[in-house]
Order: sequence, then C-alpha cells, then structure tokens
Amino acid sequence: MKNFIAAALLAALSSHGGAARAQEPIAVREIGSLHIGGRIATVEGLEPREIIFSPGAPPMRMNPNGQFRVEQMYAQYVRLQNPRARYPLLLWHGGGLTGVTYETTPDGRPGWQMFFLRQGHDVFTSDAMERGRSGWARFPEILAGEPVFRTMGEGWGLFRVGPQDGWNANPAQRRAFDNTRFPVAAWDQFMAQAVPRWVTTDRQIQAAYDAYVQAACPCVIVVHSQGGNFAFNAALNAPDKVRAIVAIEPSGAPPATADAARVRGIPHLVVWGDHIEGNAFWRGVRTNVTRWQEQIRAAGGTAETLDLPAAGIAGSSHMMMMDTNSDEVAGRIQAWIAARGLMR
Amino acid sequence: MKNFIAAALLAALSSHGGAARAQEPIAVREIGSLHIGGRIATVEGLEPREIIFSPGAPPMRMNPNGQFRVEQMYAQYVRLQNPRARYPLLLWHGGGLTGVTYETTPDGRPGWQMFFLRQGHDVFTSDAMERGRSGWARFPEILAGEPVFRTMGEGWGLFRVGPQDGWNANPAQRRAFDNTRFPVAAWDQFMAQAVPRWVTTDRQIQAAYDAYVQAACPCVIVVHSQGGNFAFNAALNAPDKVRAIVAIEPSGAPPATADAARVRGIPHLVVWGDHIEGNAFWRGVRTNVTRWQEQIRAAGGTAETLDLPAAGIAGSSHMMMMDTNSDEVAGRIQAWIAARGLMR
Repeated sequence: MKNFIAAALLAALSSHGGAARAQEPIAVREIGSLHIGGRIATVEGLEPREIIFSPGAPPMRMNPNGQFRVEQMYAQYVRLQNPRARYPLLLWHGGGLTGVTYETTPDGRPGWQMFFLRQGHDVFTSDAMERGRSGWARFPEILAGEPVFRTMGEGWGLFRVGPQDGWNANPAQRRAFDNTRFPVAAWDQFMAQAVPRWVTTDRQIQAAYDAYVQAACPCVIVVHSQGGNFAFNAALNAPDKVRAIVAIEPSGAPPATADAARVRGIPHLVVWGDHIEGNAFWRGVRTNVTRWQEQIRAAGGTAETLDLPAAGIAGSSHMMMMDTNSDEVAGRIQAWIAARGLMR
Repeated sequence: MKNFIAAALLAALSSHGGAARAQEPIAVREIGSLHIGGRIATVEGLEPREIIFSPGAPPMRMNPNGQFRVEQMYAQYVRLQNPRARYPLLLWHGGGLTGVTYETTPDGRPGWQMFFLRQGHDVFTSDAMERGRSGWARFPEILAGEPVFRTMGEGWGLFRVGPQDGWNANPAQRRAFDNTRFPVAAWDQFMAQAVPRWVTTDRQIQAAYDAYVQAACPCVIVVHSQGGNFAFNAALNAPDKVRAIVAIEPSGAPPATADAARVRGIPHLVVWGDHIEGNAFWRGVRTNVTRWQEQIRAAGGTAETLDLPAAGIAGSSHMMMMDTNSDEVAGRIQAWIAARGLMR
C-alpha cells in the first residue's frame, strides 16, 4: 500500500503526471498570500530558559519575555486572468487541519482547489488562527490551555470512513464501510496533514475569520466541519460581504437566539455524506444544523440541503473533498453555485 | 503606516491590483501539494487531561496517549504548462519562518515565487519539519525541548534592517539603516509570518528535506538563512539529485571534515546583502560559509559569491526576497541559473 501511495504522489509530482496533463492549462494572473488580523501581545515575568541552539553547543540563556505578533491567520490566493465566477471562492477547513484539505488528495489526485479554479473561480485557501502557516503563540500565557493532538485512529470513525471500532494500527486490519469513497490506502498519508489545535480559542479564530472576510470579500465561502460555525457567524457578522455559503458537514451552528434574518439574503447549502444515521455524534450535529437552516428559512432566507445518499451518491465520508469521487461532489456544489447566479 | 500596509495588501487582493495585471498570465498545468517523510510515533503513560471542548461545556477527559503521525514536511508546487527551466526550482525558507517567505511581500508586492514562475520555472515552496503546514508534535515527548518564539524586535538587527539598538516597539521610533531596502513600514506585517521553531530538531528537519529531494528532484534549490546548511547537506546526501544551489545568506555550512568532492558537480552560488561587516554574528557566519565554498573549489567544484554591495546593489537586508528591489536581486540569481545552462 505504501508503494501505491508513493507511486501516486510521485505521479502527481512528475511532469508526466496524467491527471493534470489531460486538461487545458489555467491562465493565472497571480498567486499570493497575506496574514490577516491578530495583535501584538506582551509576555512578562517568565524565567530565562537555558537553550541549546545546536547539538553539542553549550546552553545559552534565552529570555522568553517580550512582544510577539499573535492571533493572525494566513490566506493564500490564486487569481485567474479571466475568472468566470462573480466573486472569489474561499475554502475554509475543519478542525485539526489546514487549507491543505483542499489541495492534492492524500492519494495524489487534484483536489477541490484545482477543481474550482478550472471552473473559473478565483480560489482562496487559508489556515485558521493558530494552525499551519498562521503560526501559534506561547501557551498557556497567550493561547489558553493546551493543544490537542489527533491520534492516527481518531478520525477513522469520526470521519465515517468505517465503524468506530473498525480502526486498527495495522492497515491490513482496518475495517472500512463497504461502500466508503475515502481512499483508505491513503489514510496514513492523510494523517500527515493533521496539525495541533486548541479548543479554547474560538473567539480568536472567529475574529481572524471576520477580518479575513473584510479583506477578501464579497465572496462565496465553502466551509468544512469545525469551520462551519465560523462561517455561519462570519455571515451574521458581515451579511453584506458574503454572497453564499456551502457548508460541508458543518459540526456546529449559531444558537437559536441568533438573528437568522441578518443572513436572509445569503443562500446556504448544507452537504451531508453517508453513514450519519448510524453515528450518534453526527446525528446530533445534523439536528442542530437543521434547526439553524429552519431558522434561516423561517426568516425568509434560503437554506437548502444536499444529502448525497438521497441524491444517489453513496459512501461519501466526512472528508468528501478527498473521496475517490471528490470531483463528482464538487460538481454538484458548482451546479448549485451557478444556479444561484454567481457565475458570469 | 497601518493604513498604508492595509491599502497595499488590499490592492494585492483586489482584482484591480495593478502589479499583476500589467503582466501576461502564466499558463499553469497544476497547483498541488504533498506531505513527505516522517514516521508514526507512540506516546504512552501520560495522564488523561480534562479538556473543555467548547466554552461553557463541562470538561471532558481526554487521553493524550496513542499513535501520531509526526516529523513529515509540507511542500506545495505550481507546475507550468510549458516550463522553460530544465528542472523544478525548490524555494527553502529560513529559521522561524515558512514557505510564505517567498510569497507576496509584507508590503503587498509579488514575491520570488511569482518572479521565478514568470521566468519559466516550476516552483515548489515548502515548510520545514515542525513549521507551518508540516504540523508539529507534542513536546518534549516527541520533539525534544521546547519551541522558541521570535520577539517583534529580534529580527530588526539580526536581519540587518537597522542597527541592533535601532529597534523600538513604536514604529515611529525605529532606526533603520539609511540605505535599507527592507520595506520598514511593513515590519509588523512581516512578523505575522513568524512561526515557533525548535532548536533541537536539526536531524528530523534534515531527514524530511532529504526525503523531499528524493521525491521532487532532480531540481535547483534556492535556500535562505537557516535552510542553507540543510540544503548543503541535502546535496552531500544526494549529489545526483541536485543540479544547483543558490544560498541566500546561509547561516551555516557543513563541517571541514565533510567531503566537498561529493558536490563537485553541483554549482553553488552564495548571495550576501549589506551591513555584514558591522555585524559580528554575520561576519562569523560568512567566514564559515566561505570556508565551505573554498573546500568545494579545492575539490574542483564551482562555488561562487554574489556580494550585492560589491555588485552595485546597496542596502539589501537579510530578507532580500522582501526588499523593495526584490525582483532586481532575483534577476541576478536568474541570470546565474541561466548561465549554468539550467534553462531550455
């Protein structure tokens, strides 16, 4: 299996790699990035550390106090020469991951970033505050509490690739759902994309996303999992800036007290994969998100649902942007965006 | 100043942004990424933690033990439809930073990633093991010691934007060199790119870079600062894979005992900016790197130097890929690469 993955990744790297070669090139105006939001924090009163800066060298005293740039977030953009979409498309990732979620799949196929570029969108990817290229700050002094690290197996059941008890450290012993679309042979490669996360920093993550919306929008947001609630709230915080939200299995939603009338003008689509009914966590999440969709509709807004099994696509995992039929699912999303009048 | 920076960044983001618009689009075959190297580590014997997963929720017991994917590195590539360069160009960053070093400059101009794409190179950017999108592992259990966080002011002198004592928390009070090319008004924005680093992980960083070279090369490597010694060693470890190294102010070099004959076939260019003579740290670094260049030449190889002040370009900082004349410096590097016969 390892060889299979290595071969697929090297094929993707090779200038003879088939997938991309079969298609037309995309005319890119600019690729760039920026860091958004955040603040300057001061750390005081910590004891100097003895740090060995290179192996064998004597320890040096280092003062850990001072001013630090913290709580910003990173966004990267690919601008087309002639975008067909009316607004940039922002791809927001889920918990314990980064914008890499939307890049090449763990088994080496082009991801949703490339799919939506080929559909004519200026595509932005980003890393939530504290993750990936956004950087992270000293804890607990600046980021309260401590980070959480995802084990190799936690996601197997949580992301509904297989039953909760289907995980095994030995790839040959793992039990996936018979109809899973996740490229199971690439699971260990997928886990290389995981990054630590805090569970105490929602306020700072939201603040950075809100600053990002001010900088990059008007826009359409495609958001995954933990990112869902940040996007729903970003729309509530700047309803004039968000033109549509496509939420891929959002793991949260605003409270019933939130004013859904504020997002009445923003069409919402929520996408669900397979095997949710058999998973208590996801049943509960879905109930909460459905309640928010009903609030939006009750306020006169649009909040639709794409239930992939009901739509004839079985076996989709929580990581449907990495599933073997990732482009098919993206195609359904693109059709919904186009039907909202968001393409030229 | 803040407004100036915000305006520049928004201009870069805007579809009416001038810089990119004035130029021809680039024909891109594929944008993608992968994680390379690393291993699966097991953490055992830690006490369960009480974690509050969302504000106000009761604490949940979390078991921090298990298997984790660690020590991989992240690389992102932009493949041109018709590259003019014979080999991909790999851009390696320096200490406490990530591949963002080569993206849009802190004051909103296209960076070296775009420059070398426009020159016809397939361009790879990457984040060293433990930094940015590579993710990081629990410490001290997996990554020994503790991370180091860079203060707002540490780089002002170290990167030779101004004198060591020229730093001030108040931007209006900072003293830069009269001739500095660094966009000083964007310093605080630049600091948003900083990420924590360990000083105990050179072995794992080198191992990931070596795996990266096996996956992405034959190639040409442009490397900055702390990355320099990793690139020099990557060439020693895989001399058949590296076609040239351009080292931008490398902060280290292999020991005198290293066998320079192994890299005899790999042309090396070392680039130095301004104000080195007045900085004891950089004088020492340069002496060490010059010794390695002499060893390469003594072994019959090519190890040239581009001293920018001597070449008529004054005021270059350590972050010359962000300086206001960044494209001029990149042009000198491109000319050297072309003169080595590395363009078609």
